[in-house]
Amino acid sequence: MLDQAKALPKPPAEEIKERLEHAHEKLANQQLLLKENKLPVIVLFEGWGAAGKGSMISKVIKTLDPRFFSVNTLTAPTAEETRRPFLYRYFSRIPEAGSFLFLDGGWMADVTRDVLKGNIDAAEYKNRIGSIRRFESTLTANGYLVLKFFFHIEKKEQKKRLALLREEASTSWRVSDFDRWENKHYENCSQVYDQFLEDTSSASAPWYVIDAASRKWAELQIMENLTSGIDVALKNHVLSVPLLQNVFPLLDMPKLAEIPLDKTIEEDEYRVQLKNLQNRLSHLHNQLYKKKIPVVIVYEGWDAAGKGGNIKRLTAALDPRGYEVIPIASPKPFEKDRHFLWRFWTKLPKTGHIAIFDRSWYGRVMVERLEGFCSENDWQRAYNEINEFEKELADWGAVVIKFWVQIDKDTQLARFTERQNTPGKQWKITDEDWRNREKWDLYEGAVDEMLHKTSTTYAPWYILESTDKRYARIKALKIVIEQLEKALEDTK
Amino acid sequence: MLDQAKALPKPPAEEIKERLEHAHEKLANQQLLLKENKLPVIVLFEGWGAAGKGSMISKVIKTLDPRFFSVNTLTAPTAEETRRPFLYRYFSRIPEAGSFLFLDGGWMADVTRDVLKGNIDAAEYKNRIGSIRRFESTLTANGYLVLKFFFHIEKKEQKKRLALLREEASTSWRVSDFDRWENKHYENCSQVYDQFLEDTSSASAPWYVIDAASRKWAELQIMENLTSGIDVALKNHVLSVPLLQNVFPLLDMPKLAEIPLDKTIEEDEYRVQLKNLQNRLSHLHNQLYKKKIPVVIVYEGWDAAGKGGNIKRLTAALDPRGYEVIPIASPKPFEKDRHFLWRFWTKLPKTGHIAIFDRSWYGRVMVERLEGFCSENDWQRAYNEINEFEKELADWGAVVIKFWVQIDKDTQLARFTERQNTPGKQWKITDEDWRNREKWDLYEGAVDEMLHKTSTTYAPWYILESTDKRYARIKALKIVIEQLEKALEDTK
Repeated sequence: MLDQAKALPKPPAEEIKERLEHAHEKLANQQLLLKENKLPVIVLFEGWGAAGKGSMISKVIKTLDPRFFSVNTLTAPTAEETRRPFLYRYFSRIPEAGSFLFLDGGWMADVTRDVLKGNIDAAEYKNRIGSIRRFESTLTANGYLVLKFFFHIEKKEQKKRLALLREEASTSWRVSDFDRWENKHYENCSQVYDQFLEDTSSASAPWYVIDAASRKWAELQIMENLTSGIDVALKNHVLSVPLLQNVFPLLDMPKLAEIPLDKTIEEDEYRVQLKNLQNRLSHLHNQLYKKKIPVVIVYEGWDAAGKGGNIKRLTAALDPRGYEVIPIASPKPFEKDRHFLWRFWTKLPKTGHIAIFDRSWYGRVMVERLEGFCSENDWQRAYNEINEFEKELADWGAVVIKFWVQIDKDTQLARFTERQNTPGKQWKITDEDWRNREKWDLYEGAVDEMLHKTSTTYAPWYILESTDKRYARIKALKIVIEQLEKALEDTK
Repeated sequence: MLDQAKALPKPPAEEIKERLEHAHEKLANQQLLLKENKLPVIVLFEGWGAAGKGSMISKVIKTLDPRFFSVNTLTAPTAEETRRPFLYRYFSRIPEAGSFLFLDGGWMADVTRDVLKGNIDAAEYKNRIGSIRRFESTLTANGYLVLKFFFHIEKKEQKKRLALLREEASTSWRVSDFDRWENKHYENCSQVYDQFLEDTSSASAPWYVIDAASRKWAELQIMENLTSGIDVALKNHVLSVPLLQNVFPLLDMPKLAEIPLDKTIEEDEYRVQLKNLQNRLSHLHNQLYKKKIPVVIVYEGWDAAGKGGNIKRLTAALDPRGYEVIPIASPKPFEKDRHFLWRFWTKLPKTGHIAIFDRSWYGRVMVERLEGFCSENDWQRAYNEINEFEKELADWGAVVIKFWVQIDKDTQLARFTERQNTPGKQWKITDEDWRNREKWDLYEGAVDEMLHKTSTTYAPWYILESTDKRYARIKALKIVIEQLEKALEDTK
């Protein structure tokens, strides 16, 4: 794809000047439309060292209101970031609705440098390409405009520029070891860059290879592609997005109504098993920590099904320094102004840690669906977006366990009534609980669809029959232990 | 991707039977919905020899109404097909709205065999992958459901099956030379297949790798993926499709209003030049034929601008066995029931031939746009779809020349009036011409947008200033000659 830099002939200087003025004016107007329509824009600048990425950003933003954009320069991942999935540092930085994010280097530099340094093999490269494709496509599907520019200069030109920069004391710091290495291994780098561009160019988040030999001409290419990209995004943002076909292996799941709820356990048996299982889990937690395996556990279920008590029996066995329970309520305004998974991406555990989500991203296809907090198109797309998100976690090496805590309608009524009549428990029951109960059948349909569409082999759902809460607790502990043992076995 | 065949565990026989019954019932119901919603479905079956592709088709169609599907088995391209772009044989076969097309082998077998036989190099492979991706995505964007299944069996299993087939006189004909070669070079084939699947899997036209060791289990995987794919397509067909970003290098074009129309040529000068140019063109036509270069010339322009006379001066120089003038009127019902480019794909010239389109696919973004014959989403998407289509022609090696024949409003009025007042010319002017004239300004806006968005480096627009028709004819001849000479030069 690098040969695309020469696809268009450079126009005469006078024409460039004229078209540049026009483009800057257009961008200045577009920023207001972007704000008005709550459209976020991510502009990624990548390219050869000394090709002029950094200085270009200041040219592009010159007519933009500083409140509406931020600029991020790629540095080496922090210690915190290296203990998260590969895309964490990018997903956590996505701009809010109506704002620009300019990235001076990003996931391309990350991956191609790892390839050039031999840090990752062909299989891991393939994984990362898959992650990047899904990342960019879920952003565009959720209204983000993603434009990517690669600044191209020839080997000779780069050499000349690097030499010039190094001559001056005031600019020599801008030449990195990598820049020099890159120029020396220009052909090899070319191949790796070309392959990456090819692998990650799509017509919804395209790469533009920019002829950066002339700065003015480079600026014009950027400005015209940027403004016409915004035109397209402004047309698209009112449209629904077609659903994608499912590409993940799905396990056959029973319907809620078919699940027998007569399972119980004797009190004495419960006490003995609880103690044994908690001891085993405690032991496993230490091993997980040593092996740096991250764990994500999701609890979803009916109100009063016993989620809280179940989680408590799990955490009782865990070292508090190595786990976190994350209660999920409705999103805050700054969370709503971003991709719906952003608030979960930013709450992922570190490697070796356990995150227990008390309610989760599945709110999208339950409460947000049924209460109309998102559009039908949004929740219908979400099944696939969630499967992709969990694929990211699994590829990272995480154990993903999802519990649906199941009771029947009568059991819920009995527990609601008991709560209402017990002074110490009244805080646990609200008007909203009663309102939700009225929509039981709608919720049941939504849960059936959710279980059917998101129980993948790498992140399966487990049903916890919880009319006897003790039975459900023992079952949860057994499943967690089994899955952790399997993961430890796999890393041996 | 071949390892995906083992992603799901094979269920017990009883469960398979039950789920199969359910899936066949579902498909029987879905075919009515597909017909009702005018949704076309393309199902591609590819896979290892003797993996059971052919016999699977008969199982899948058993509950389908024969009026609603057709089955095509891949054979070697005919002589006619080899003289057309790579995708011609597939684009020309796409089903009409509401029908199924089952393909027993298709573009995957075509490409991977060419790779295995060494018929195409890495660059040509990359081109074909690009073509296939665009082909599948424009189909899905236009409401086609495209599902692709790869039947996977292990080397040993294939060897066993081939031996069994060859033992019986009644089945030995089913084992081809290629099947035996494939089994012998199983590992090499695996690599090529895996790469192809990886390169062409997308979440809108995904590959499903099917574990075909057990026939019943294979049938279930196909049926469940097919029916859930149809579910998604039925949900999508009412939605608009987001516009893609432009990824093609666009030339800067003037607005119609800015084009000076004062160019003329003297009568004597015209006669001399016309004769010379036609002689040169005539000579070039022979060379084109020998070099097998295909040529596509598009004429668009205002009514009474002089398209017809211009075309005549061109064809006067050509050997009638080597060119065709294709007048384009509004589409017939069977054409409307397919992708809007289908009727142009099927009219492409053979290699070495010239096709002159008197009006063309650009009707989509002019008359169809302005008269509401397609949705806004349709014509907005069409700019990119047209650029992709012409890219296919250019990659095939075709010379693509597009003329906009330009006059001003007064000139049109003068010519209309003259036609009306000249008995021999009255047939040339209709009420519709007068109606279109009233919408001049709307058309002018649409033409400006069209020229701006579809003048690519590989298929540029040329303006023919035609207030002096003779000037326009000479200019057209010069451009055609120049472009053909360039193409001949490039093939030297």
